[in-house]
Amino acid sequence: MFYSKLFGKTTKQIPSDLSTISAKLLFQAGFFRESTAGRYFILPLGQRVQLKIIKIIKEEMDASGAQEMISPLLHPLSLWKETNRDQATGYELMTVKDRHQFEFALGGTAEEMFVDVVRKFQLSYKDLPFNVYQFSTKFRDELRVRGGLLRAREFVMKDAYSFAANEQEFKQEYEKMAQTYTRIFQRLGLTTYKVESDNGYIGGEYCHEFIVESPAGESKFLIAQDGSYAAHEDIAVFLKEKNNTTEKELPLQEVPAKRGKTMQDGVNFHQLPLKKHIKNVLFVSENKQLILASIRGDYDINPVKLKNLVKCHSLRLATNEEIRNKFQSEPGFISPLRKNPHLPKNYLHIADTSLSGLKNACSGGNRKNWDYLNINIERDFKPDIIGDIALAKAGYLTLSGQPLQEKRGIEVGNIFQLGYHYSLMMQNAVFTDKGGKKKPYYMGCYGIGIGRSMAAIVEKHHDQKGIIWPQSVAPFLVHLIGLNLQNSNIRNKVNHLYQKLRQLQIEVLVDDRPDVSAGEKLADADLIGIPYRLVISQRAGDKIEIKKRGEEKAYLIDEDKILTILPSAATERL
Amino acid sequence: MFYSKLFGKTTKQIPSDLSTISAKLLFQAGFFRESTAGRYFILPLGQRVQLKIIKIIKEEMDASGAQEMISPLLHPLSLWKETNRDQATGYELMTVKDRHQFEFALGGTAEEMFVDVVRKFQLSYKDLPFNVYQFSTKFRDELRVRGGLLRAREFVMKDAYSFAANEQEFKQEYEKMAQTYTRIFQRLGLTTYKVESDNGYIGGEYCHEFIVESPAGESKFLIAQDGSYAAHEDIAVFLKEKNNTTEKELPLQEVPAKRGKTMQDGVNFHQLPLKKHIKNVLFVSENKQLILASIRGDYDINPVKLKNLVKCHSLRLATNEEIRNKFQSEPGFISPLRKNPHLPKNYLHIADTSLSGLKNACSGGNRKNWDYLNINIERDFKPDIIGDIALAKAGYLTLSGQPLQEKRGIEVGNIFQLGYHYSLMMQNAVFTDKGGKKKPYYMGCYGIGIGRSMAAIVEKHHDQKGIIWPQSVAPFLVHLIGLNLQNSNIRNKVNHLYQKLRQLQIEVLVDDRPDVSAGEKLADADLIGIPYRLVISQRAGDKIEIKKRGEEKAYLIDEDKILTILPSAATERL
Repeated sequence: MFYSKLFGKTTKQIPSDLSTISAKLLFQAGFFRESTAGRYFILPLGQRVQLKIIKIIKEEMDASGAQEMISPLLHPLSLWKETNRDQATGYELMTVKDRHQFEFALGGTAEEMFVDVVRKFQLSYKDLPFNVYQFSTKFRDELRVRGGLLRAREFVMKDAYSFAANEQEFKQEYEKMAQTYTRIFQRLGLTTYKVESDNGYIGGEYCHEFIVESPAGESKFLIAQDGSYAAHEDIAVFLKEKNNTTEKELPLQEVPAKRGKTMQDGVNFHQLPLKKHIKNVLFVSENKQLILASIRGDYDINPVKLKNLVKCHSLRLATNEEIRNKFQSEPGFISPLRKNPHLPKNYLHIADTSLSGLKNACSGGNRKNWDYLNINIERDFKPDIIGDIALAKAGYLTLSGQPLQEKRGIEVGNIFQLGYHYSLMMQNAVFTDKGGKKKPYYMGCYGIGIGRSMAAIVEKHHDQKGIIWPQSVAPFLVHLIGLNLQNSNIRNKVNHLYQKLRQLQIEVLVDDRPDVSAGEKLADADLIGIPYRLVISQRAGDKIEIKKRGEEKAYLIDEDKILTILPSAATERL
Repeated sequence: MFYSKLFGKTTKQIPSDLSTISAKLLFQAGFFRESTAGRYFILPLGQRVQLKIIKIIKEEMDASGAQEMISPLLHPLSLWKETNRDQATGYELMTVKDRHQFEFALGGTAEEMFVDVVRKFQLSYKDLPFNVYQFSTKFRDELRVRGGLLRAREFVMKDAYSFAANEQEFKQEYEKMAQTYTRIFQRLGLTTYKVESDNGYIGGEYCHEFIVESPAGESKFLIAQDGSYAAHEDIAVFLKEKNNTTEKELPLQEVPAKRGKTMQDGVNFHQLPLKKHIKNVLFVSENKQLILASIRGDYDINPVKLKNLVKCHSLRLATNEEIRNKFQSEPGFISPLRKNPHLPKNYLHIADTSLSGLKNACSGGNRKNWDYLNINIERDFKPDIIGDIALAKAGYLTLSGQPLQEKRGIEVGNIFQLGYHYSLMMQNAVFTDKGGKKKPYYMGCYGIGIGRSMAAIVEKHHDQKGIIWPQSVAPFLVHLIGLNLQNSNIRNKVNHLYQKLRQLQIEVLVDDRPDVSAGEKLADADLIGIPYRLVISQRAGDKIEIKKRGEEKAYLIDEDKILTILPSAATERL
């Protein structure tokens, strides 16, 4: 490929809204452009990288026995109604009607579609298990987008769906996919953490994200120092400090109180340690259900855990108005106790397990400037549910006692157990078992974002001068630069070497611009980040200068040697 | 791949709405399923074929110097407004709003998008010419669909867009694409006719369709016996029989007349040959403009030519009501003459060139049961435009006197000259020329439908038993069938050969079903149509039966020989 005719060249300008390193470098180097916010043109250089990523994913998926296919991008909305997801995901789902007023969802994930095509066949246990996948465009109407290709509203994703006869068959596939993913990301030059995560709106009981550690990422996770445990902040569990359960229960007292800006003011006021306080937060669910969440003062509430515990789709904090008028309490003085006769009858009270066995605690009195002392759970209040709703933090311990670290990263892939979630909600999603009985499929699903992987690679592989592509995904293997191209001798040598390399099936980008300075050409090569840079110039004479991107030193060597080094590098790349 | 775990197996049932051979065979053999009308799941077998088609197209496009990239599927509707196509193509365009009420078109073709990304760069003549292409899903909200993958509402298409500094640069690219297309279709096993076609709503001045002759196709075209001319029925021109221009003009006469069911009744009634009659048809354009089209009695009107001549987007026949009330005439008696004072003032009158020099013709009198005789153009009526609006038919002659044949076929690809159509309608679609001046791009575009190509291949390559895939696109090279699999010796031999072939990188589908009859397995192999069928059975003993799909004879040969024949076949396939 001649750089002069390449569509999408380097630029010095960077739009001010590009905040991540990958977005800046990929923009500057000519790998993408924005169409509208979150929707991108992938330019020829970028597409070469995407195709290499896709090839690696395909090879590994095929090696695992998975089968590539394609589902339409417009999903009949009726399918999403079968699983109630037309409502649950309303905030990211776009819908469209055709000329016959038939309604479609623009696919952002395709569980329903794959169940729908599978149920068109009368399958038996003999056809199982299988795993089908596709590379296709996904649409997510995100409220906000940021970071260029790291979070887009339209992007190519590999999504796979496995169908098994039972949990055991499924678990083998899940484990195989976990290993396949680790291999895929290794080949892409990415070290990933396999992190337990929240299922979100996909459904099912457990799932894992594959996260590349990076400050540019949006995923916060906690990991044991010895790596024995890794979980997304949303669901991470930890060892809670035990309460002194043998302490004698003292009589409940209602006392005047003052509030400051933090819990510490309460600690000072009552001269009671934080872990003797009960923190209460009022939430409202999408169905306007009031949910009171109580937790020990030294911990914070994790709204995702709370949401999952009460099985609702979304939660928000109650406003001060709602605390006063709907809950008949006072901001800052919400109580876990039901002493106030005006409290609504139908609120749901959730207590964190950290309250179990807590003795003689202090908390609000449901009226301004009054607190209770010596609160004892069970004696003074009985929550509807006691469960884990605590937010894990760095320094806490895993259940086996390992200190947790907090990390941030980019979620490049995920694997989900779906279980019977979809096969039970959708009609006829059944196979015939050995005994001739109809049974629902046991399912899983598995995703990898292509553009996000590309961006993650850049976040991990770059320096001050530009991108440093791993060989496996580089847009070209060789960047051949001709300097002093006014000299026909040099021009001929460049063309000669280019033809030779092409005959060897080596992918070469040739900088053939006659009117651009050496400095600019070398800077462009650093920015674009192709693994091998070859320079033909008057200074190099009969030799060719070779330099690997990311290494300091350049070498002058003979063409013959070039023609042996590069083909073996090209083979390695396959 | 083990057939037992392949998703998408053969079936004997065919839905009654599948009318074409390709749809029936591809359905039965498990290559696709319908989601909703015109939107298809491409199953693993089908996707293997599609990927091979894509690979061939990509290789040839890259060899031509074109560069692959990706544009978003949701196009800002504002771009389509820039070119007025939001209206012109309203009938096939679907639009959708995001949560911020921003309006998008679901891309059915991407001229605007590619101009939009190109104009984001400040290009000069040095960057030109270039040709960028993508494989992506296209959406067309067709009124009706038929024939399975031959016409879909959602399908993968390769679309390319070339940008040149001038017509000369463009023409080289256009010619290169024409040659590239011919090579692509050859490699797909398709013989194509390059046929001049109507530009439709794409814009530009000329274009060619690549058509595979087939009764299943929707494209009707005319071709000279010596191949020197080929054109779509919509635009085909032909040599019209000359009028006797020296005949003396007789006085106009208004005479009573009767109509029958055909023009022949008029011929008989007036005792005048067909070519002395003038046929008049009233049309209505999308802007409610009345258009009267007149042609010599021995020819028929071609509505596409008429539409292009009057530069409107759509035409329909006027109803009898409109003929009477809007045009103040009488169905069957419409006249080219304006003698009736009640005729509307603003209708457009188009005459075919076959009327030039026609003397003493007969036509309607604009009132029931009255005709005019001795009509002479110019003397008795003056059309607004005289042009070619005649429909070409088999047996007519090309302009150089060659007899035309009529053929029907499947349009698998097309190439369009766009000229300055888009670069002038869209702001800033300019490059800097040698003199430093801003000039619009000279453009072309080039499409190939992937699913349609697959269906066309099946239309051309099948027999009574099923599909006969050309090696280049077959889903697998080898269909390995184990009979008598209860016998562990046979089972081991099948597995052994399968592993050996896999080591040789040969794509094999193994029929490993233990409980299916030999007859059923062989019938399935014929239906699926993989090039080489290998059978291991008790009857074959130590030998392996090999048979090429589409050939009659099977041979018993040694494994060693298999292991030399097949790798060379696999290489050929690349």
